[in-house]
Amino acid sequence: MKKVIKNGTIVTATDTFQADIFIENGVISQIGENLAVRGAEVVDAKGCYVFPGGIDPHTHLEMPFGGTVTKDDFETGTIAAAFGGTTTIIDFCLTNKGEPLKDAINVWHAKSREKAVIDYGFHLMIGEVNESVLNELPSVIEEEGITSFKVFMAYKNVLQADDETLFNTLVAAKELGALVMVHAENGDVIDYLVKKALSEGNTEPIYHALTRPPEIEGEATARAATFTGLTNSQLYVVHVSCAEAAAKIAEARSKGIEVWGETCPQYLVLDQSYLEKPDFEGAKYVWSPPLREKWNQDVLWNALKTGQLQTVGSDQCSFDFKGQKDLGKGDFSKIPNGGPIIEDRMTILFSEGVMKGKISLNQFVDVTSTRIAKLFGLYPKKGTIAVGVDADIVIFDPTVERTISAETHHMAVDYSAFEGMKVTGEPVTVLSRGEFVIRDKQFVGKLGAGQYLKRAKYGKSYETVESKIVKM
Amino acid sequence: MKKVIKNGTIVTATDTFQADIFIENGVISQIGENLAVRGAEVVDAKGCYVFPGGIDPHTHLEMPFGGTVTKDDFETGTIAAAFGGTTTIIDFCLTNKGEPLKDAINVWHAKSREKAVIDYGFHLMIGEVNESVLNELPSVIEEEGITSFKVFMAYKNVLQADDETLFNTLVAAKELGALVMVHAENGDVIDYLVKKALSEGNTEPIYHALTRPPEIEGEATARAATFTGLTNSQLYVVHVSCAEAAAKIAEARSKGIEVWGETCPQYLVLDQSYLEKPDFEGAKYVWSPPLREKWNQDVLWNALKTGQLQTVGSDQCSFDFKGQKDLGKGDFSKIPNGGPIIEDRMTILFSEGVMKGKISLNQFVDVTSTRIAKLFGLYPKKGTIAVGVDADIVIFDPTVERTISAETHHMAVDYSAFEGMKVTGEPVTVLSRGEFVIRDKQFVGKLGAGQYLKRAKYGKSYETVESKIVKM
Amino acid sequence: MKKVIKNGTIVTATDTFQADIFIENGVISQIGENLAVRGAEVVDAKGCYVFPGGIDPHTHLEMPFGGTVTKDDFETGTIAAAFGGTTTIIDFCLTNKGEPLKDAINVWHAKSREKAVIDYGFHLMIGEVNESVLNELPSVIEEEGITSFKVFMAYKNVLQADDETLFNTLVAAKELGALVMVHAENGDVIDYLVKKALSEGNTEPIYHALTRPPEIEGEATARAATFTGLTNSQLYVVHVSCAEAAAKIAEARSKGIEVWGETCPQYLVLDQSYLEKPDFEGAKYVWSPPLREKWNQDVLWNALKTGQLQTVGSDQCSFDFKGQKDLGKGDFSKIPNGGPIIEDRMTILFSEGVMKGKISLNQFVDVTSTRIAKLFGLYPKKGTIAVGVDADIVIFDPTVERTISAETHHMAVDYSAFEGMKVTGEPVTVLSRGEFVIRDKQFVGKLGAGQYLKRAKYGKSYETVESKIVKM
Amino acid sequence: MKKVIKNGTIVTATDTFQADIFIENGVISQIGENLAVRGAEVVDAKGCYVFPGGIDPHTHLEMPFGGTVTKDDFETGTIAAAFGGTTTIIDFCLTNKGEPLKDAINVWHAKSREKAVIDYGFHLMIGEVNESVLNELPSVIEEEGITSFKVFMAYKNVLQADDETLFNTLVAAKELGALVMVHAENGDVIDYLVKKALSEGNTEPIYHALTRPPEIEGEATARAATFTGLTNSQLYVVHVSCAEAAAKIAEARSKGIEVWGETCPQYLVLDQSYLEKPDFEGAKYVWSPPLREKWNQDVLWNALKTGQLQTVGSDQCSFDFKGQKDLGKGDFSKIPNGGPIIEDRMTILFSEGVMKGKISLNQFVDVTSTRIAKLFGLYPKKGTIAVGVDADIVIFDPTVERTISAETHHMAVDYSAFEGMKVTGEPVTVLSRGEFVIRDKQFVGKLGAGQYLKRAKYGKSYETVESKIVKM
Repeated sequence: MKKVIKNGTIVTATDTFQADIFIENGVISQIGENLAVRGAEVVDAKGCYVFPGGIDPHTHLEMPFGGTVTKDDFETGTIAAAFGGTTTIIDFCLTNKGEPLKDAINVWHAKSREKAVIDYGFHLMIGEVNESVLNELPSVIEEEGITSFKVFMAYKNVLQADDETLFNTLVAAKELGALVMVHAENGDVIDYLVKKALSEGNTEPIYHALTRPPEIEGEATARAATFTGLTNSQLYVVHVSCAEAAAKIAEARSKGIEVWGETCPQYLVLDQSYLEKPDFEGAKYVWSPPLREKWNQDVLWNALKTGQLQTVGSDQCSFDFKGQKDLGKGDFSKIPNGGPIIEDRMTILFSEGVMKGKISLNQFVDVTSTRIAKLFGLYPKKGTIAVGVDADIVIFDPTVERTISAETHHMAVDYSAFEGMKVTGEPVTVLSRGEFVIRDKQFVGKLGAGQYLKRAKYGKSYETVESKIVKM
Repeated sequence: MKKVIKNGTIVTATDTFQADIFIENGVISQIGENLAVRGAEVVDAKGCYVFPGGIDPHTHLEMPFGGTVTKDDFETGTIAAAFGGTTTIIDFCLTNKGEPLKDAINVWHAKSREKAVIDYGFHLMIGEVNESVLNELPSVIEEEGITSFKVFMAYKNVLQADDETLFNTLVAAKELGALVMVHAENGDVIDYLVKKALSEGNTEPIYHALTRPPEIEGEATARAATFTGLTNSQLYVVHVSCAEAAAKIAEARSKGIEVWGETCPQYLVLDQSYLEKPDFEGAKYVWSPPLREKWNQDVLWNALKTGQLQTVGSDQCSFDFKGQKDLGKGDFSKIPNGGPIIEDRMTILFSEGVMKGKISLNQFVDVTSTRIAKLFGLYPKKGTIAVGVDADIVIFDPTVERTISAETHHMAVDYSAFEGMKVTGEPVTVLSRGEFVIRDKQFVGKLGAGQYLKRAKYGKSYETVESKIVKM
Repeated sequence: MKKVIKNGTIVTATDTFQADIFIENGVISQIGENLAVRGAEVVDAKGCYVFPGGIDPHTHLEMPFGGTVTKDDFETGTIAAAFGGTTTIIDFCLTNKGEPLKDAINVWHAKSREKAVIDYGFHLMIGEVNESVLNELPSVIEEEGITSFKVFMAYKNVLQADDETLFNTLVAAKELGALVMVHAENGDVIDYLVKKALSEGNTEPIYHALTRPPEIEGEATARAATFTGLTNSQLYVVHVSCAEAAAKIAEARSKGIEVWGETCPQYLVLDQSYLEKPDFEGAKYVWSPPLREKWNQDVLWNALKTGQLQTVGSDQCSFDFKGQKDLGKGDFSKIPNGGPIIEDRMTILFSEGVMKGKISLNQFVDVTSTRIAKLFGLYPKKGTIAVGVDADIVIFDPTVERTISAETHHMAVDYSAFEGMKVTGEPVTVLSRGEFVIRDKQFVGKLGAGQYLKRAKYGKSYETVESKIVKM
Repeated sequence: MKKVIKNGTIVTATDTFQADIFIENGVISQIGENLAVRGAEVVDAKGCYVFPGGIDPHTHLEMPFGGTVTKDDFETGTIAAAFGGTTTIIDFCLTNKGEPLKDAINVWHAKSREKAVIDYGFHLMIGEVNESVLNELPSVIEEEGITSFKVFMAYKNVLQADDETLFNTLVAAKELGALVMVHAENGDVIDYLVKKALSEGNTEPIYHALTRPPEIEGEATARAATFTGLTNSQLYVVHVSCAEAAAKIAEARSKGIEVWGETCPQYLVLDQSYLEKPDFEGAKYVWSPPLREKWNQDVLWNALKTGQLQTVGSDQCSFDFKGQKDLGKGDFSKIPNGGPIIEDRMTILFSEGVMKGKISLNQFVDVTSTRIAKLFGLYPKKGTIAVGVDADIVIFDPTVERTISAETHHMAVDYSAFEGMKVTGEPVTVLSRGEFVIRDKQFVGKLGAGQYLKRAKYGKSYETVESKIVKM
């Protein structure tokens, strides 16, 4: 069915202008002044911004971790995402050493297929590189359209890969056209510090932060970037939390090494002192990397502003405070890592970033949607407002003032990381491929309506008229 | 009259997509698939890119320099610009100490008013800051819409301002909403080295480069950036030529100092060895800063790619080889500085940058047009393709292969800096506010059709629906 | 007369060992275990360190400044120096533009000849470089043995030289074998900020610090270092006060540029907060560069420890609080800059540096004596304890605990910068060329006994057996 | 027996002066002008330098490696060392996982006890840290006087330790007072690159260098330095070969991290092109890290000069060209790593460093002897010329010109790394604790005369009169 969005102010990663948008067959067909309605349903966006739907490149839905499973699955997770203005997610598919990659991918298809209310894709974790893995990777890319691989430099004896595996993955990714993502912390050092802290009776949540110092995030980031330069490959550093890591990314980029950096809302507005909240409440704020000293926030905002960090993901990885986070009572190392962010990612960026002058409105769109689409092979199907693009659209009222709370959020967990924070701006209506998912702040979507996205190879999003590939 | 551009591939600073463009009253009114013609003139862009018109932020037309005057004036200069895909220029208005700024501005209006075939604005040179100047500046901004000031750190005893003047200008610019531009080279050191070279009988053109080492461009850049940080002001470093200066800009930006950097085509594709050409031909390649060792080119391209330099200007400042450049025979210091670039700026960037994979197609648009419009208060009237924007449009055939030559160029000078260079791509048709200036590679514009542009204050290009100013 | 120092622990810039020292004709002739007395006077150093006499490379005695004259002259200044363990000073000889250098030097000889109780030399200020100055410099070096030139980058319209003068001085110094010393602050910026502060009614001493931010010390330091690299010359940055400047020196050195850095006791132990003392007392702590935020102290100590700063001078430049400093009541810019440090330099370094583990005992000797002797052409006549070296010796009791106070110090001024500071260690006996100047903490020297020192050219202190010059 | 060395020019790490040295009981008892002979044997040093004996902190004598054993043992190795002016070595004692450390130490005692002609100590390799190792370490330090531990970050599956082991070692070393030494290259990456090169048929010696790029030496150096900062421990990076690693050391030191760096003669004067010599001769130049591009030499010399690298070791690890190096014919990875340097270390530093003005004469003494003694707990017994110090003395003729060659050297191997190099300077006479080892260029020492050295804890070399420990 046709729709026309009228009277809004369209915002892309580069432009801000008033115009109507005509949607046919789930795709944007026209953008113009006073477009004729031609039988389309009219959606009024007066006084609102019209953004391309957010893309969250970093979610962990229904993921087993530390003996439990993340609370939000592809149903609650994608509904919450939509409420927050996100219309596409890319979730991490975990693999097990010695088992076919396809098996893991099929598990993830099974988790998502009948639940997702918005479109989604998968990254694939690489825990080992051997002949079997190398044989399977081409079909992962060609058949499954999974063009990004995740390597963990932390979580020793669990997820952590050694340096040779990372190096090998970078070589394979270069050949195959994939983007390598790293969790950059030195897992060996963490393992030592955690054991030491526990042996000394330091069991409270704050020790989670104190046993993962920023220096070893910077170290791992630099190491991965060095490998990327040596392999002439491409790297995406997830959840950059601190000045040290941001500096290493900038340094690599200045040498011509293709490194990209993602940060998350929690690192931009929360800080290490939250882990010291009494009554074990600090456990709510346990992420890896951990929240940092507050001064890092300015550095991260400036890195987004100057383009030295390029994206913002949620690292959605939610656990209930009661029943899950409390597994770590008496032993911080048993606190499940992660928190519920998927719903608030866009709002935090808008309210704390745009409204406070730290990034521009166009940069907001770029870091939450456009650049992500380009890096992960979704562009130009996703990630912008232009003719021919999927009508994944957010109508966003920038004047609403509200307070974030677990009582009103749509995620399945029993707490909010931003409880009580006053924010400005709210998605009013959200469309996925031209269909309403959220309408006037009500969920009107359908379980399973979200489509699985096969993604293009790295750097292949830019087909030109003459079929020449122009790299981003 | 209405026009519709059909079948092209529109490229903005962020998007690439196929769509038609409808133009009414000189402004883009619709962008869409298969737009109805509705009585408009159809312009076919099949097989072509459709770019926003280029904006050249750095020209010196009909400018007195070293006892002569630049060869291209607002007639030949803007015609050549249009042939090259540029639809707006911002020229430098020189001032004289002790004389009212308005007098100088009026001289520039007189030079341009009846000649310019495309739109244009002025930057204002600041050679001194005193009460008279401070009193006059507000009207320069409010009435003349001149919102960028140029300070020279070189050309001792001629144009050079001392550090207190630069500092003072930054303070005033911050208060008034202007952007300060600097020519960043240490003029004192140059003066010494030039005198020394000449006294030792070193008179050939290559000594122009050898007496302006990159270290003192880096030094001056760092100094200006330091002042910018101290004044919390904003700075734009023109014609960055070398790794040293680019590094200083990146360093300042990483500290949160608002510094922007421009490079020029000549620094991206030519190098210091050109100054050693025999028969005084090296004089053709005399710019300040000078061409550098070739390895700097990779650094500059990478800085554009990673966003650490943001724009490309031409520094158009043309002199005939015979009759002007030869003033410096026997004394390199008398060679008029500068060269003819205005026509080739976009082509060099496309052919050497985009086609060789050094920057993306969207970055090409950003660095040659969009970012410049935003920095200099022309956006959103200029600098992009979106609804409501001036129809300054370039239809560009990316498949043409041709050779740059003085024989075929449209600038008034007797040589080309890129003589014999094979390039790919050519503007076919160019519109200024919806009117043809170039049509099928022929000039069809009118002298004086170009309008003088009053520009918005720095950072005020981003009015939002709610009248909130959102900074870039 | 012969002397033998027995039972002490000799400390040089590299060694620490117990041995006796035999002195004949004012020179050390033997060092050994249980040396025979052979008719010499025995000086017992039991329980004490035996250091080479301190060399203070940075004093301003009886110097006119801002309409007044520094309180300590060559009598009180050198007596106080001796009490503090310093046996040689190098004072700055100010010059006047347009007058012969020799005239200025003669003025300085007249000030010092009949007063100095320890040996002394002069640095020469260079305020301009013209033919007359260039003609006179060779004799300054050859006849006067003045092999170090001082250039001021600050004090606009008073002492400040422009960049061409500094560059020129570096070139001349390279040719002649002299070391260029700079006061590295950007005088233009300071001038602006001072005028602005006063115009806004900010007249208190703290504004002295706030109008001389560390960034412009870093800037000037980098600028001077860049010039040094371009001229392949040698530079000594006096009174480094902050992290910014120390970093620039280290950066230059890592590129192979010959830059040396001096800091002062006041920057190592006092901080900017002292300027906020009530009742105008902040004026006591007015130095240029100003005292900095406290965290800089760690950076400076670490730079001394790692060899990135190489010397510690006093920048002795004393004014009475009553009658001199108070010229600046109601206008901080009129407070005479400087303070009384010459007596406490060695003690502060020992007590705060060595005793608190920030530098080693040998580094203490190096930064207060040996390295200075080597840089300024006094070695091996001065600066160490070895056979053949002048018997300038300090017997230092490292166990004394005492409190610094104007009541007990020997400088002529009415306050102490370190009033009330508890320190460990005190010179007990001090010899100059084998004669007692201080004996058992009493002054026993003679006015005029100090000799004027003609110094060797830069880098010529290292004659070898084969008459080969080996550079430091 | 007593000796007196007459007429020489004594050089220490800080001083150069002419004086005689009196030796009693193997120790220096006096230094002075025209010392009385008092029955001592007179050794004439006219026209010569008198240096403290060199200390080589990095040797591998009779060490098993890659299926063979280094050619020089404690007999030929220490004799060659003595000929080269080295009077003390510290050799690496290799350990085996799961076996008592004491067993390994006893093996090393057995290798050395009856052979060494000069004094020697051991470093201990740490390959794992477990309870057994931690229990044994205190006695290693207290009883054996082994106060330095070596950790390999390269040689995967052979010597390489993981990051947790390195971290653990740093913690233990801090507690126990030991210095941790690292071979800093990323063994995982090397392992990958070596396998890849071989699989592509790239088997020649040059591939040894190409599979160990400087970036991964820089990476490992930075990683180890980061760990050192986190543990507040102390680190010594052996055989720094390249600019990348030197820069990382300087960066860490500027942050106050206690990191020291050693380079070797081969990195200062040889370069990567040597590995391309025909007829497999490149194998002679196979070290790990490998020789680098020639421009790195300037960076390393400058780092020594400015104190950012502090010592020069030989990394003596010799293999015959025929019969050992040729194990790697057809497979560069099987070429035994290392070369014969112990005899030439001091000469190369003097001839290429001092005589060419790259370091001073005193720095030569510091980097080859004094600083090493201080870092490794040998000072003040060894490492300088001062009263009370062991009479380990080298009489060195700085005027001899000679050519290095395997035909004349005293190492057991069949080639010289410096074959044909013309050098200036030669040790004439060498004493160990007052006894001649080399006299007039002839070996006159005794097998087994060398004593095993129990070394002081890190930082404990500086006992003062008041029994206060003053750290270097």
